Amino acid sequence: MRLTKYTDYAMRLMIYLASRPSGLSSIREISDAFSVSQNHMMKVVQDLANAGFLESVRGRNGGIRLAQPASEISLGVLLRHTEELTDLIDCEGCLIAPACTLPIVLSEATAAFVSVFDKYTLADLIGRRSALVALLGFKAEDRADGSAL
Amino acid sequence: MRLTKYTDYAMRLMIYLASRPSGLSSIREISDAFSVSQNHMMKVVQDLANAGFLESVRGRNGGIRLAQPASEISLGVLLRHTEELTDLIDCEGCLIAPACTLPIVLSEATAAFVSVFDKYTLADLIGRRSALVALLGFKAEDRADGSAL
Repeated sequence: MRLTKYTDYAMRLMIYLASRPSGLSSIREISDAFSVSQNHMMKVVQDLANAGFLESVRGRNGGIRLAQPASEISLGVLLRHTEELTDLIDCEGCLIAPACTLPIVLSEATAAFVSVFDKYTLADLIGRRSALVALLGFKAEDRADGSAL
Repeated sequence: MRLTKYTDYAMRLMIYLASRPSGLSSIREISDAFSVSQNHMMKVVQDLANAGFLESVRGRNGGIRLAQPASEISLGVLLRHTEELTDLIDCEGCLIAPACTLPIVLSEATAAFVSVFDKYTLADLIGRRSALVALLGFKAEDRADGSAL
């Protein structure tokens, strides 16, 4: 069982933005941090911006940031947006599809899966924030107001 | 979110065998029914036979059948065998892996997913058995004792 690369990149992106002490991030620095192509990350950013999860500030010193505090971003809402949660098995063209009840079990199991994500917010993914800050190489000057962490 | 083709084929195979009024099935007829290559289906059959889910009878009139009644085959046990239920996201090489708590959420969500499968047996997947029998084209002579359905 696998989640898509799209969800993977979206989760990394959101964790990155939530971990940043403050200020804006560039797609380039996020792509570099995760060794993901800028082109792929750009698509994820545009989609999550369109969906209202993050906002972009234009201009020379522009960049992206979370649209809401991490504690207000439900992982269940995020997962429902990034992941196709139907069709865990491709029944298209299967001879027994009209009488098979496996989709009912799959649907119930998927609902149970997502309900666990519903219990958590993005803030729960950055519980080890000082370690994340160190791993991502954020520094005090990343703060918009220039103050120390 | 997707399950593997392997689980897909294994589920179809098990539903096929559970739906059959009685007697043995050949890999060829199962492959034909689901338009799956015999080579792929052969691998699934060998693996599920090795794992004790089905048994094969050798010889000219040989074939395969379930090793236990469908009502005794747990879908959770079957899924745990056919599906890799760790690493829903590939964290290998990810910069933040040492501090990221997403795997904890994924693990809890996966356990909730499998616990739904644990509630059901293969017999629950053939609740619409007469429709399955018709779709699969089974006839009364498929019964080992030759009696009518």
